[in-house]
Amino acid sequence: MRFFEDLTLGERRELGSFTFTAEDIKRFARQFDPQRFHLSEEEGRNSLFGGLAASGWHVATVYMKLLVADTQRSDREAAARGEEVAVGGPSPGFRKLRWIKPVLAGDTITFSSEIETKRISESRPEWGIIQARNRGTNQRGEAVFSFLAIGFVPLRNKSA
Amino acid sequence: MRFFEDLTLGERRELGSFTFTAEDIKRFARQFDPQRFHLSEEEGRNSLFGGLAASGWHVATVYMKLLVADTQRSDREAAARGEEVAVGGPSPGFRKLRWIKPVLAGDTITFSSEIETKRISESRPEWGIIQARNRGTNQRGEAVFSFLAIGFVPLRNKSA
Repeated sequence: MRFFEDLTLGERRELGSFTFTAEDIKRFARQFDPQRFHLSEEEGRNSLFGGLAASGWHVATVYMKLLVADTQRSDREAAARGEEVAVGGPSPGFRKLRWIKPVLAGDTITFSSEIETKRISESRPEWGIIQARNRGTNQRGEAVFSFLAIGFVPLRNKSA
Repeated sequence: MRFFEDLTLGERRELGSFTFTAEDIKRFARQFDPQRFHLSEEEGRNSLFGGLAASGWHVATVYMKLLVADTQRSDREAAARGEEVAVGGPSPGFRKLRWIKPVLAGDTITFSSEIETKRISESRPEWGIIQARNRGTNQRGEAVFSFLAIGFVPLRNKSA
């Protein structure tokens, strides 16, 4: 992870893509969200989703998996260049999560994260607080998933 | 699921409890959130969490699993009493998700859901819209997880 000083407003990270196969959708649903329209093609077609639909929590966890992989990849690259790598703090939560359109079997969702606000914490001035708009977009360019994540990012210069 | 007319403001459902074992925490993290403090006791102790901590997404999906199980159980009971069972609509999203305290290995979290607002949809008057405050509380009575879910619930009397 990068330091607070190195993050710029409006900066956008491309996190990668994931194709939700019917098998993935059903496996996640059996574990965590066993509703009919996530478990059976026929039930999905007969639901408001119009097809076998991924659980919204499945979409959210795939975002998380891609975010972690992208962060670990850029950490390794920074370390290989001899740069110091920041260690992020926990996330206190997020805001305005929206499942905008169904994610159906076969859809490929591309995820991105864009920094919307950054400020230094008043109570813990060695930490910055960023808000990032995270989005998922399907293969037709339609937004399907969006939320505003809040995260703690360490300052490089802690005496600032 | 129950019909819009049968839901009352302030009504609270107890969804049940789940104990997050170290094995559960690591298995979820390997699948979806492979950060060090979710994968190793030692890394967890050395982090701000102070111990092996469950991914926030793991806490959210366990809530979902208990919600679905409780809904399916009450649907079966209602059907056994000969009552008509409502079929819910998709959730458009939620608001103000907060991971308030870490969930550490061995913690038992009890989840509940309380109806905070209910209204009839203006654009789709055969549906009601409810907002429910969902909470997770640990074995010491401390709130660890909270969010405001939004859901569509069908009206029993669609000509209303």
